Amino acid sequence: MPEGTEQRRSYRKGIERRQQILDHAIDQFAERGVDGASLRSVGDAIGVSHAALRHYFSSRDELLVEAYREHERRVQPETLPATEGAVESMAQSADRNRGIPGLVQLYSTLTSDALQEQHPLTREFIRARFSRVRDELAEKIAEGQRAGRIAADIDPRDAAALVAAASDGLQVQWLLDPGTVDVRRSLELLERFLPSGSAG
Amino acid sequence: MPEGTEQRRSYRKGIERRQQILDHAIDQFAERGVDGASLRSVGDAIGVSHAALRHYFSSRDELLVEAYREHERRVQPETLPATEGAVESMAQSADRNRGIPGLVQLYSTLTSDALQEQHPLTREFIRARFSRVRDELAEKIAEGQRAGRIAADIDPRDAAALVAAASDGLQVQWLLDPGTVDVRRSLELLERFLPSGSAG
Repeated sequence: MPEGTEQRRSYRKGIERRQQILDHAIDQFAERGVDGASLRSVGDAIGVSHAALRHYFSSRDELLVEAYREHERRVQPETLPATEGAVESMAQSADRNRGIPGLVQLYSTLTSDALQEQHPLTREFIRARFSRVRDELAEKIAEGQRAGRIAADIDPRDAAALVAAASDGLQVQWLLDPGTVDVRRSLELLERFLPSGSAG
Repeated sequence: MPEGTEQRRSYRKGIERRQQILDHAIDQFAERGVDGASLRSVGDAIGVSHAALRHYFSSRDELLVEAYREHERRVQPETLPATEGAVESMAQSADRNRGIPGLVQLYSTLTSDALQEQHPLTREFIRARFSRVRDELAEKIAEGQRAGRIAADIDPRDAAALVAAASDGLQVQWLLDPGTVDVRRSLELLERFLPSGSAG
C-alpha cells in the first residue's frame, strides 16, 4: 500500500476518533453538565483517558468549546420559517434546551469563563456567538418593522440584545426554579411589543 | 483578666480579621474577577495564605458567596424611591455594576456554579437571591398595575423574571462587547411596556 493511502487512512481514523470523543462528551455534558477545571478532571468526569483527550484537544477550553459548537450544529434547524419572529425563535430554542439541562449548564460555564481573561479561546467563541445571534435577531426585528408589526422607533440592535439576554437569563432562572419560572410565558411578554408574523 | 473577657476579645478579633479578608477579597475580585477552582488557588490569586482562608471559610464556595453577599450589603441603597419602577431599579443596579466589572464576573461565576450539583451552598444562595429579586420586582410591577400604568393582564411574576433575566443577560453581553451593547438603552425598551412612575 502506498504511504499516502496509509496516511490518509490514519488521518480519517483520527477524525473519526475525535468525533467519537466529542459525541461522548456531549452525551455526558447533557446528562450532568460540566464541572472540571482541567482537561484531566473533565476526562475523569466523562470517562475518557487524559492521553486520548490530549491527543485531540489542546486544552479543557478547546474541548468544551468544540463540544458546544458541535451540539449547536446538530440542533440548528435546517430551515427556519421566514415569518418566525425574533422572540419566537428564542422561545423555540429554549423549548429544545429544556430536555438537555446539562448543555444549558455547559453554555453557562462557557459564558462565565468568557468573562475572564484566562480563557481567551472561550471568550472569542462566546463573543462571536453573541454577535451572530444579535445580527440574526436584529434582522428579524427589522423585517417586522418593514412589515409594520413592530414600532419603527425601536432600535433593532438594542432590541436584539434584549431578546438574547432575556432568553439566556430566563433559562438560568428556570434551571434553578423550574416550578416557578416559565421561560416561554415570560418571553411571550416580550412578544407583545416585538410581535412575530404569526401574531401580527 | 477573666477568661470570658479574653475569649470575647479573641472572638472580636476573629470577626475583624474575617471582615478584613472579605474586604480584601472583594477589592481583588472587583479588579480582576475570580478564576480559581479551589480555596487554595483563590488564596494564591488574592494574596491571602491558604491557612488564613481556611481558618475563616470552610470552602472556596463559602468565600465567594460571603464576598458577594457582603458586596451587595454595601451597595444596596438605603432607601429606594417608592415610585421607582421595576426596570429602572435594575437599570440603576446595572449602572453601578459598570464600575466594578470584576464583581459582575464573580456573580456570573456564582450563577454558573449554582447550576451544578457540586455547589449546593452557591445554588442555595443564588436561588434565594433570584427569588427575592423577583418578589421585589413583582411588587413594583403590581404597584404599576394598581396605578394604571401597566397593563392589568400582565402576570407580575412572569414580568419580574423577564426583567431580572434581561438585566443579567445584558450585563454579560456588555462585558464582552462594551462598544456594541448598551444595558440601559436595551432595558429602556422594556420600560416602554412596564413603565415606572416617573415615565407614567
